[in-house]
Amino acid sequence: MSGGLQLDEIVARLGGVLQGDGSLLVSQVGSLLSAGAGQIAFIASAKYREQLQRTQAAAVIVPPQFADDTLLPRIVHPNPYAYYARVVALLNPAAQGRPGVHPGAVVHSPLPASVSVGENAVVGEDVRIGENVTLYPGCVLGDGVRVGDDSVLYANVVVYDHCVIGRRAIIHAGAVIGADGFGFARDGERWIKIPQIGRVVIGDDVEIGANTSIDRAALDDTVIGDGVKLDNQIQVAHNVSIGDHTAMAGCVGIAGSARIGRRCTVGGAGMISGHLEIADDVHVSAGTLVAKSLSRPGAYTGIFPLAPHQEWLHNAAQIKRLAKLAERVAELEKKLELMGKTS
Amino acid sequence: MSGGLQLDEIVARLGGVLQGDGSLLVSQVGSLLSAGAGQIAFIASAKYREQLQRTQAAAVIVPPQFADDTLLPRIVHPNPYAYYARVVALLNPAAQGRPGVHPGAVVHSPLPASVSVGENAVVGEDVRIGENVTLYPGCVLGDGVRVGDDSVLYANVVVYDHCVIGRRAIIHAGAVIGADGFGFARDGERWIKIPQIGRVVIGDDVEIGANTSIDRAALDDTVIGDGVKLDNQIQVAHNVSIGDHTAMAGCVGIAGSARIGRRCTVGGAGMISGHLEIADDVHVSAGTLVAKSLSRPGAYTGIFPLAPHQEWLHNAAQIKRLAKLAERVAELEKKLELMGKTS
Amino acid sequence: MSGGLQLDEIVARLGGVLQGDGSLLVSQVGSLLSAGAGQIAFIASAKYREQLQRTQAAAVIVPPQFADDTLLPRIVHPNPYAYYARVVALLNPAAQGRPGVHPGAVVHSPLPASVSVGENAVVGEDVRIGENVTLYPGCVLGDGVRVGDDSVLYANVVVYDHCVIGRRAIIHAGAVIGADGFGFARDGERWIKIPQIGRVVIGDDVEIGANTSIDRAALDDTVIGDGVKLDNQIQVAHNVSIGDHTAMAGCVGIAGSARIGRRCTVGGAGMISGHLEIADDVHVSAGTLVAKSLSRPGAYTGIFPLAPHQEWLHNAAQIKRLAKLAERVAELEKKLELMGKTS
Repeated sequence: MSGGLQLDEIVARLGGVLQGDGSLLVSQVGSLLSAGAGQIAFIASAKYREQLQRTQAAAVIVPPQFADDTLLPRIVHPNPYAYYARVVALLNPAAQGRPGVHPGAVVHSPLPASVSVGENAVVGEDVRIGENVTLYPGCVLGDGVRVGDDSVLYANVVVYDHCVIGRRAIIHAGAVIGADGFGFARDGERWIKIPQIGRVVIGDDVEIGANTSIDRAALDDTVIGDGVKLDNQIQVAHNVSIGDHTAMAGCVGIAGSARIGRRCTVGGAGMISGHLEIADDVHVSAGTLVAKSLSRPGAYTGIFPLAPHQEWLHNAAQIKRLAKLAERVAELEKKLELMGKTS
Repeated sequence: MSGGLQLDEIVARLGGVLQGDGSLLVSQVGSLLSAGAGQIAFIASAKYREQLQRTQAAAVIVPPQFADDTLLPRIVHPNPYAYYARVVALLNPAAQGRPGVHPGAVVHSPLPASVSVGENAVVGEDVRIGENVTLYPGCVLGDGVRVGDDSVLYANVVVYDHCVIGRRAIIHAGAVIGADGFGFARDGERWIKIPQIGRVVIGDDVEIGANTSIDRAALDDTVIGDGVKLDNQIQVAHNVSIGDHTAMAGCVGIAGSARIGRRCTVGGAGMISGHLEIADDVHVSAGTLVAKSLSRPGAYTGIFPLAPHQEWLHNAAQIKRLAKLAERVAELEKKLELMGKTS
Repeated sequence: MSGGLQLDEIVARLGGVLQGDGSLLVSQVGSLLSAGAGQIAFIASAKYREQLQRTQAAAVIVPPQFADDTLLPRIVHPNPYAYYARVVALLNPAAQGRPGVHPGAVVHSPLPASVSVGENAVVGEDVRIGENVTLYPGCVLGDGVRVGDDSVLYANVVVYDHCVIGRRAIIHAGAVIGADGFGFARDGERWIKIPQIGRVVIGDDVEIGANTSIDRAALDDTVIGDGVKLDNQIQVAHNVSIGDHTAMAGCVGIAGSARIGRRCTVGGAGMISGHLEIADDVHVSAGTLVAKSLSRPGAYTGIFPLAPHQEWLHNAAQIKRLAKLAERVAELEKKLELMGKTS
């Protein structure tokens, strides 16, 4: 945490309109409910207006339409949540890796002086790393890897040979970039491995969660667009392409050669089958399997609704007779129509 | 494996009532069906009484109600399975890490002499570790981490800065504790990262499976209660709270800010949506998505029942017309009622 | 990539029948659509015959029935896809780990001279490793581990004590073999750990994906048969047995003591409950939970079909009344039959 900033310093750096005492010092953020002395909160939606009245925060970030709802010192900005995100970053500068290359690291390529390489990290041959990159302990970069400026790879991340990571990436511990795609040809009862000779190419401003894996392509590239955000425990198969600014929550799986559009979201444990195309601005609900292409934007869902177990048993038993039930209803309709005619 | 123990030694250490020859030496455990000479089995449920008659085990652990069902030397205890668990531990003491700090490890904080730090493990600054803690090779502990007495972290576990782990923890290889929660604010089509400045705080007697990840909170703490057991490949998002003695099977996902009660269980690949409250003693079936709060204890399920693929196709096709089918049935009921009146 | 091979060299090594100019040099593979000069493609199915007409590839691998469909130099073979897989391997020999034991590795057991041990890898005591094995940086092998000839373990793989890996294994980064199975006995509200004293035993020609975990057995062995292929992010619980040549896609979970047959496939995020038996040649669709034994080969599915969210809401609401709906239809049928009799 920094020593704090005055409201007018924040506005000078991040924009917005100050209302009230600009000399007020804020040292931390908080929610409307939890913030106290020296803390700044935000409100983005009308449903929290009552909390705004009761907040103990020292200052708030508000949208223009609620600017007059409070007497607290405030910063008025049309996107209070994004503004808040930037204030958190200002007040809580990211920890820096220890500068330089730790003597326990093994580095086979020349690196810029601004790079931090942690204990026991390994950098292969012909690797090119940009300025101000941080490799935490135990990271392993294969031969020919590229990492753009200002990227951070946390502990024990593995990047296989020849994969490319853009600028300002944040890759969390245990993530694996560039393992072989799952490609085999049947030969009798055996599987013959198809060597995976493509790469993974990751754009700028991408964040990848802990223990997530992204496989290299069979021939060309698995492509992760700019600004993509992937949570933990995600599996991205070979030859997948994910459009810019798409975000996926934990435990999602994307099967091979799926093409996901821009600005999509996939809820936790959502699954996308292989060789599909998903349009821009598609939103897949948590727990939903997408087994066909989706050419229109919008929200899609496919979840069996939860119930107490006994109730579920009764209803689930009927699922297996559902086609039959529909036939019985059609039969009834026919009979009734006939009776209507004959009566 | 130890050299074995006499039944009366076991009873002296673990309690229970001995019936039969206390000098009998047992060197290993086994199931009623598989156990042979020198092995002790257990029976907990009436459905295995026939196996008890046929067992080749040298001794058995039995509940009082089956104590007279066998002539074998036996230990009578009201909870034979838990007793068996303790016998397994007695006969199979856990492997110890090699004592002391391996010269290939990099340790930036003073540690008790009783701590074992494996090859190439890394311990950051301002770390406090209790007595008899074992860090296996390749573990990485960030700055300011706390680990309680008698905890074991297996190879390549990563604990981010400032996270707290209680006493007697067992954390399996590849687990990641304290990576950033998945928090972003939309700004046009871009996502602005909300720095995650909270911690993960884990109670005593917690076990965490291989490649499981638990994210740090946005502001406060992600909290894992005492005695919680998490299997492999689990994702626990930021700001989640899991009550004491709750257990979750593999591949489970818990979305952000969910509050799970005490003594709950979640079956494999169960998913809990964010910002929910789950009461104590809730049991979620495998493969079930919980998308709403559950205020009552009990078992909950939501799974599409399995069928041969062709059968599934027929029934699944009807799901999409289910609301319409219900309307058609209501229509039939109306017509029939009308016909009843007019006939 | 190698310098390329003439078609007749390929046929000399891999078999098949050459038609056309055997001196043609091919240096890489490609798809019918993407391949260009110096590249060889394949066709396996009639649906790509039109692409065969338009391909810019220098040569193709074709099955006998399409051998006359093209004038290009071609290799005729009854299984073009498997042949293609072998050609990819010929033209793209796998990267070799740097020879010998890197000085930053820590090795407690004697190893054959042909073994490559990467930077900061750790090999425990009483380990036996075959010829030509490659351990990438950061791998950790516990005490008593066995690894067969020609196996490759990528970076940061962890193998716990006493586990056994066969010949020609490929284990991807972050995989964890032999962590404790998830076994606990209830004791009041607490869980008592059942120490897991079994092993994991993996056959020959097995591939295991990134961040996949396979738990050791409670007593005996978790068994992975010959030729099994497991994708990334898979969880295999204790005491599971997977038959030879079975393949599982990403995010699959197999619960404890499940016995899976030979030549099965499980689609992405498929889940198999514990203590089940799955016959040989069973194919489980992606996203499907198998909660009962399957004694017959065939394809099985259980997925809630995807729909636009609003449509899903309407249909899902009816699921909870499905048993009731079936009763109402039965009631209508009864009434109608009665009316038929009385009219």
